[in-house]
Amino acid sequence: MSGVVGIYSKERSNVSQILYYGLYAIQHRGQISTGIAVNNYGFIDYHKDLGLVNEVFSKDIIERLRGNIGIGHIRYAYAGEAQNLANTQPFVVGYKKGALAVAHDGSIVNFKKLRREMEDNGAIFQTEIDTEVIASLIAKFHKEDVEDAIIKALETIKGSYGMVVMTNDRLVGARDPYGIKPLAIGKLGDDFIIASESCAFDTIGAEFVRDVEPGEVVVMDANGLRTVSKRPLKRNLSLFELIYFARPDSRIDGKSVYISRLEAGKELAKMHPVDADVVIGAPDSGTVAAIGYAAGSGIPYAEGLIKNRYVGRTFIQPTQELREQGVRIKLNPLKENIQGKRVILVDDSIVRGTTMKQTVNMIRSAGAKEIHIRIASPPVLYPCYFGMDTPSKENLIAANMSKEEIRQMLEVESLEYITLEGLLKAVGGDDGYYTGCFTGEYPVMPEE
Amino acid sequence: MSGVVGIYSKERSNVSQILYYGLYAIQHRGQISTGIAVNNYGFIDYHKDLGLVNEVFSKDIIERLRGNIGIGHIRYAYAGEAQNLANTQPFVVGYKKGALAVAHDGSIVNFKKLRREMEDNGAIFQTEIDTEVIASLIAKFHKEDVEDAIIKALETIKGSYGMVVMTNDRLVGARDPYGIKPLAIGKLGDDFIIASESCAFDTIGAEFVRDVEPGEVVVMDANGLRTVSKRPLKRNLSLFELIYFARPDSRIDGKSVYISRLEAGKELAKMHPVDADVVIGAPDSGTVAAIGYAAGSGIPYAEGLIKNRYVGRTFIQPTQELREQGVRIKLNPLKENIQGKRVILVDDSIVRGTTMKQTVNMIRSAGAKEIHIRIASPPVLYPCYFGMDTPSKENLIAANMSKEEIRQMLEVESLEYITLEGLLKAVGGDDGYYTGCFTGEYPVMPEE
Amino acid sequence: MSGVVGIYSKERSNVSQILYYGLYAIQHRGQISTGIAVNNYGFIDYHKDLGLVNEVFSKDIIERLRGNIGIGHIRYAYAGEAQNLANTQPFVVGYKKGALAVAHDGSIVNFKKLRREMEDNGAIFQTEIDTEVIASLIAKFHKEDVEDAIIKALETIKGSYGMVVMTNDRLVGARDPYGIKPLAIGKLGDDFIIASESCAFDTIGAEFVRDVEPGEVVVMDANGLRTVSKRPLKRNLSLFELIYFARPDSRIDGKSVYISRLEAGKELAKMHPVDADVVIGAPDSGTVAAIGYAAGSGIPYAEGLIKNRYVGRTFIQPTQELREQGVRIKLNPLKENIQGKRVILVDDSIVRGTTMKQTVNMIRSAGAKEIHIRIASPPVLYPCYFGMDTPSKENLIAANMSKEEIRQMLEVESLEYITLEGLLKAVGGDDGYYTGCFTGEYPVMPEE
Amino acid sequence: MSGVVGIYSKERSNVSQILYYGLYAIQHRGQISTGIAVNNYGFIDYHKDLGLVNEVFSKDIIERLRGNIGIGHIRYAYAGEAQNLANTQPFVVGYKKGALAVAHDGSIVNFKKLRREMEDNGAIFQTEIDTEVIASLIAKFHKEDVEDAIIKALETIKGSYGMVVMTNDRLVGARDPYGIKPLAIGKLGDDFIIASESCAFDTIGAEFVRDVEPGEVVVMDANGLRTVSKRPLKRNLSLFELIYFARPDSRIDGKSVYISRLEAGKELAKMHPVDADVVIGAPDSGTVAAIGYAAGSGIPYAEGLIKNRYVGRTFIQPTQELREQGVRIKLNPLKENIQGKRVILVDDSIVRGTTMKQTVNMIRSAGAKEIHIRIASPPVLYPCYFGMDTPSKENLIAANMSKEEIRQMLEVESLEYITLEGLLKAVGGDDGYYTGCFTGEYPVMPEE
Repeated sequence: MSGVVGIYSKERSNVSQILYYGLYAIQHRGQISTGIAVNNYGFIDYHKDLGLVNEVFSKDIIERLRGNIGIGHIRYAYAGEAQNLANTQPFVVGYKKGALAVAHDGSIVNFKKLRREMEDNGAIFQTEIDTEVIASLIAKFHKEDVEDAIIKALETIKGSYGMVVMTNDRLVGARDPYGIKPLAIGKLGDDFIIASESCAFDTIGAEFVRDVEPGEVVVMDANGLRTVSKRPLKRNLSLFELIYFARPDSRIDGKSVYISRLEAGKELAKMHPVDADVVIGAPDSGTVAAIGYAAGSGIPYAEGLIKNRYVGRTFIQPTQELREQGVRIKLNPLKENIQGKRVILVDDSIVRGTTMKQTVNMIRSAGAKEIHIRIASPPVLYPCYFGMDTPSKENLIAANMSKEEIRQMLEVESLEYITLEGLLKAVGGDDGYYTGCFTGEYPVMPEE
Repeated sequence: MSGVVGIYSKERSNVSQILYYGLYAIQHRGQISTGIAVNNYGFIDYHKDLGLVNEVFSKDIIERLRGNIGIGHIRYAYAGEAQNLANTQPFVVGYKKGALAVAHDGSIVNFKKLRREMEDNGAIFQTEIDTEVIASLIAKFHKEDVEDAIIKALETIKGSYGMVVMTNDRLVGARDPYGIKPLAIGKLGDDFIIASESCAFDTIGAEFVRDVEPGEVVVMDANGLRTVSKRPLKRNLSLFELIYFARPDSRIDGKSVYISRLEAGKELAKMHPVDADVVIGAPDSGTVAAIGYAAGSGIPYAEGLIKNRYVGRTFIQPTQELREQGVRIKLNPLKENIQGKRVILVDDSIVRGTTMKQTVNMIRSAGAKEIHIRIASPPVLYPCYFGMDTPSKENLIAANMSKEEIRQMLEVESLEYITLEGLLKAVGGDDGYYTGCFTGEYPVMPEE
Repeated sequence: MSGVVGIYSKERSNVSQILYYGLYAIQHRGQISTGIAVNNYGFIDYHKDLGLVNEVFSKDIIERLRGNIGIGHIRYAYAGEAQNLANTQPFVVGYKKGALAVAHDGSIVNFKKLRREMEDNGAIFQTEIDTEVIASLIAKFHKEDVEDAIIKALETIKGSYGMVVMTNDRLVGARDPYGIKPLAIGKLGDDFIIASESCAFDTIGAEFVRDVEPGEVVVMDANGLRTVSKRPLKRNLSLFELIYFARPDSRIDGKSVYISRLEAGKELAKMHPVDADVVIGAPDSGTVAAIGYAAGSGIPYAEGLIKNRYVGRTFIQPTQELREQGVRIKLNPLKENIQGKRVILVDDSIVRGTTMKQTVNMIRSAGAKEIHIRIASPPVLYPCYFGMDTPSKENLIAANMSKEEIRQMLEVESLEYITLEGLLKAVGGDDGYYTGCFTGEYPVMPEE
Repeated sequence: MSGVVGIYSKERSNVSQILYYGLYAIQHRGQISTGIAVNNYGFIDYHKDLGLVNEVFSKDIIERLRGNIGIGHIRYAYAGEAQNLANTQPFVVGYKKGALAVAHDGSIVNFKKLRREMEDNGAIFQTEIDTEVIASLIAKFHKEDVEDAIIKALETIKGSYGMVVMTNDRLVGARDPYGIKPLAIGKLGDDFIIASESCAFDTIGAEFVRDVEPGEVVVMDANGLRTVSKRPLKRNLSLFELIYFARPDSRIDGKSVYISRLEAGKELAKMHPVDADVVIGAPDSGTVAAIGYAAGSGIPYAEGLIKNRYVGRTFIQPTQELREQGVRIKLNPLKENIQGKRVILVDDSIVRGTTMKQTVNMIRSAGAKEIHIRIASPPVLYPCYFGMDTPSKENLIAANMSKEEIRQMLEVESLEYITLEGLLKAVGGDDGYYTGCFTGEYPVMPEE
């Protein structure tokens, strides 16, 4: 998971500050690195570094990055990729036709094969990221117009993507043919914005126009917005965005993220009721589903774990000794809502089980009489190659233990999951969603 | 408002890391500066700087700060005091008896007068803070034992304080005779901890023992904990801590902060009901009272304004132009819960009215049909000299406009405050609380 | 001008600290950026950034960079190349055969042509530097053994270079076929070192073994040192190193840099004597030649301009107003050696004339009765494509004004240059030196 | 040893940039910390920190520090004083009469006694430096006019000092009654400058006016410059400045530092001639005396040890292993001037003997046939309480070993010192110099 933003402006000469706020809005999609590229005075200038948006960009840098076209990226920590400067995006290169910048969110599952083929032809690679392969493919088709080169490159790659590409005179957006990754179009006055999530439009004061369709390639330039390619394949819309990743105030493919989670909570309450005193959410992933469960069950919602709002990304880790003495920095159980109570704990998922175990221990230590876990998604049984960064199968707890075994390991009174049917009902029906990690069914298989 | 932490340990040689986590827990009490002092190898070593706890202290610094006794401080931005290094605490000095470190939360209202008297006698002052006067007073009484010197100094000063003082062999804690400022005692194994709020004990794995009593001075040393002075005056317990400052998971003078706010919300619902679709809290100050209002009224609680969790203290401010175009970085209304709805907006207070106006505008722009404001404290009519940093009377909106005028200015359908009686009922009855900014009644008057 | 260092060690697991000191020793060759790459655990790890050696590398980074093979680079500010991170070296890539790191000092004059050809074939380029083309050429020949691939790549490029290349199991050094750029081999116990200048060996305690010969390619691996290619062309040894660039304590192609400059000063005294009281050198470039001139003429050498040893790379520039009032930060004339005296001012060259004008003004303002300039190299009449970064012809003062015109512009009593013959005599005879900027004769012409 | 600069300007509103360049010029007097204080808008604003002038001050800070009066300080690392922020200067306080800033170079030898007396009266001290006592004394006399208060304070303290004091409307300069510490007055247009060394005037484009006389107190304000007190005691002029500390381009008490050292070298040549091939100076302390020795003896001067000009204050220290392998970062012997030669090595002093031993080893390892050490000051037999920071007697090599023993320890062919008479002759005769560390005679004794 990562996030992208792009802008094409007719009038503005400094779009980078708008990109900055747009990236801020989607910071939850990745905290490892960020970057902005703009068409500064005829070449593409950029700045990127490891860190959060407000750490990487200073006022001086934003003022330096001038231009009317720009793209931005924030990056998640993918397992198995070095967290170094080389692997940051946007990826900016020179090629036959001039300069090109590419940023994308997603997984190109045949990129290693493509890279090997290029290496056979003598190519060098300076990064580990699939974006370099995408840029190389576009350059390979340089005899075509850049739009056609991008379309041809996209026909070559397989996987999920929400992508922005810029040259000196235009901005291109592309969404994978399955619709696994989200991408939306907004408008700020006469300017076009493109972003992974619609909350970016709200943040910068733009209006949501529409989602980019699965398999669609759009171009924004002096002539406005136009679709240059449509190549939809079997719909596998971004279900994981709705239930895990996206900000509650985003809308994706016509669905409200908040309402999806709220309804999943309500559905869960209907499906797996339990007599209890209080409903609490695992912070922050389970909050909305917990409010939904409370509404669906009539059991009061309460804050159960107070989060220290000032804990930064960098702080001194407690020593093992201090940890054993009970030092806990980020969360503190609110005894008033837990002690002597029968607690329903709602979360969006259980992946490895380790975080849930810690949360349960904390609630138990605060004196809960009973703990009932309710999960607003089905068990994660398979790795997810496209939507999110999951561990391999041996680390997925639900792939290795039965529900009852997990319940015993967690030492809770009950554990229940929503069913896939229930979840699809909560999001308004089955429009063709990507559900690989629940079902093991994928639109396309990874190639090594 | 500031915060203090202190520790006396029999066994540990490095208490600074524990102080570090304790300060983390009370970071909400001030974000301007922080510092830690320890009795390192016979002298008092310290480190303090402007910034948050995780910014000011590195692993290297914490490892350098060795000792079995230590105190820490975090500081709020007081109006009228320079935010520079000189004004940071703990305040560390040498005097006749050796080294001394002082940190305090509160306002000494006769400190300017005391300082003038000392200057008449030829004293120099290196800071603008009242802490320097406190340390000078202790030094003045150096012929007494240090405990007696502290007691004499405290008899000389007037105002509110939660204070920690350390020498090379003991830790002293003192709370003002009115109990305006909170201070509590905890225990971590055999070690004594003292802190402004009990949530610090939870964070470091310590147990809450009891509150320091109004006017009490306690000493912790090789002989354990003992009370060396009791001088209670008219009770004016820290009401503002319960309704504004403290973390919801703290307990102060036997009251749960969370429950106090929740009950205030319920009481408010009883006192000022209104027909509406949804209850939302102003983030984050109104959240708990909103949950209480929802519980008291039966109207569903919902998240109305989504906060960007990644907005750091430092980010690039939008230009005026971008602000006018609607850039909003920190908060985004969740349309699903607002559009076309009758909204009850709950907050803990209205001071100047500017923040509330912005919040109302945001909710209105998201399509609210009606907006009803409910405030979980009475109107702030007077400045607060002891409890919190309020503006002067001309900037207090309730001191200058009637409730109806404020309602019209805010352009909302209704505006209601809880009464002081209702609030005192919510916190469990009138135990003698400091209510100066509602009533204009103060336990002691400031001296210029 | 830049500088390179490389090491192959049989025993050490952390060669980066040795590279660090080696780069320190040749820091005078460039102050823009620096980097180190090592064969860390099977892949090539590296760190590079803008700044001086002691700014870019911390203890933590040096400890992270583990391996028994490594290369390092420091970079000069070339006109027309962006001083950004992308253009730093070593240049590290993956290709068909694995990982490759390249660092070089020199100018590849057909690199733009080669780059265009590669772009025609669909290649992308992420930097502006010729090193990227070199690496791409090596990758292109990946079917050959890496040594042969390097040799083939070197046959394709034209220009000057002292180069180090490393893979996971060997270190390769190469010097251009003309010998324009220096490169030398040293030994530290059983380990081989390669460096632009021999002073790097002294600094790290290694012994000088020999210069790499013009056109020679050497390989250092588990089998020791061996020459894998010899392709000398017309000798154009690095004269500019002897008279301008190299540190006085380096030896290049059998010549002592110090002695070369000292003898040039002596020869200049013989060729252009003048009756005067004192000989001073322009700091620091003219110091050694001034000592030589003094020895050759019998006129006493003295320090005429005292340099502030603490002026760092970054300091606040004086405003125009302060500059006009006479603020001068770096140099101060020593009146005792100048006032009322006839001064001979010796420097290594005059390029644009602006620095010399400032120096003359400073000496005149200190009360010199006469100023006689003596230059230890011939007039710079042509741009230098290979040896050093010179401005274009219109900015070379000697290409646009006669000696008498320059003298009048500088307002000095006399101005004389050593002849090329005199200079070659000073360095011990004409062994075939590159003298392009004096004569306009180049071993190979740049291709656009 | 430290350094001070002060300025009073009638017209300028930002004197801090001039102070900045002035501090730069005297950076050689101390590298531990630096600070500037100015009378910004009615109060005294300041900035000070550990580090060099160009590290501590940014453009933003210099622009913030506005005012027409200012003082600056740089600090040397005194043995026994913590190198922390508290001990930096200028020392800025509020007292009865308003604000006061003090900066001084020197040693107050009765400050501990004075501090104890003040502590007996209940005073607190926030630093370890004697400057705090000076400020406290001035505040103690606050009933007097500030000028008289300063004079009274100076009559109370004993020791050496060059001092600047500022209030909101005037600048005061004071030099100790013996003249141990230097202090000079300059003029920049209509503005008065005061500085430890005259080279500061050259750097900022000001003219030298005169030295402050021993025991003189001068005031600069809207009425110009005036002397307010003269209290000269037995002359003990700053001999150590001439031979050790000051920059060669400074003039102190009518003497040129450069000429003093040059003449000392010549006198040394006359006094202790030896047959040799080359004269080299220990960098940089012995350079000028070496040039003098060469001139006096007729033996050619040469550079023997090349210094790496880029070695910053912070760099990674070599491990013991690397040090044993011969890593040497700062200096490299120039073999051409040493190998097979009889070398005369000149330095300004031998204190502990350790540095000299390293230098000798380096020269020997470069192949010197003979090494003859000549020292341009007499043996250091006693600690120096006023002029410079020397170790205690047990660490002074000349106080514990005979000349012959030292020669054997250093393993050199000969070792000779100039006599005190010779040195006084070199500086133009005995005007009454402080020579405590050669003779054990001090103008005043330290009091504990």
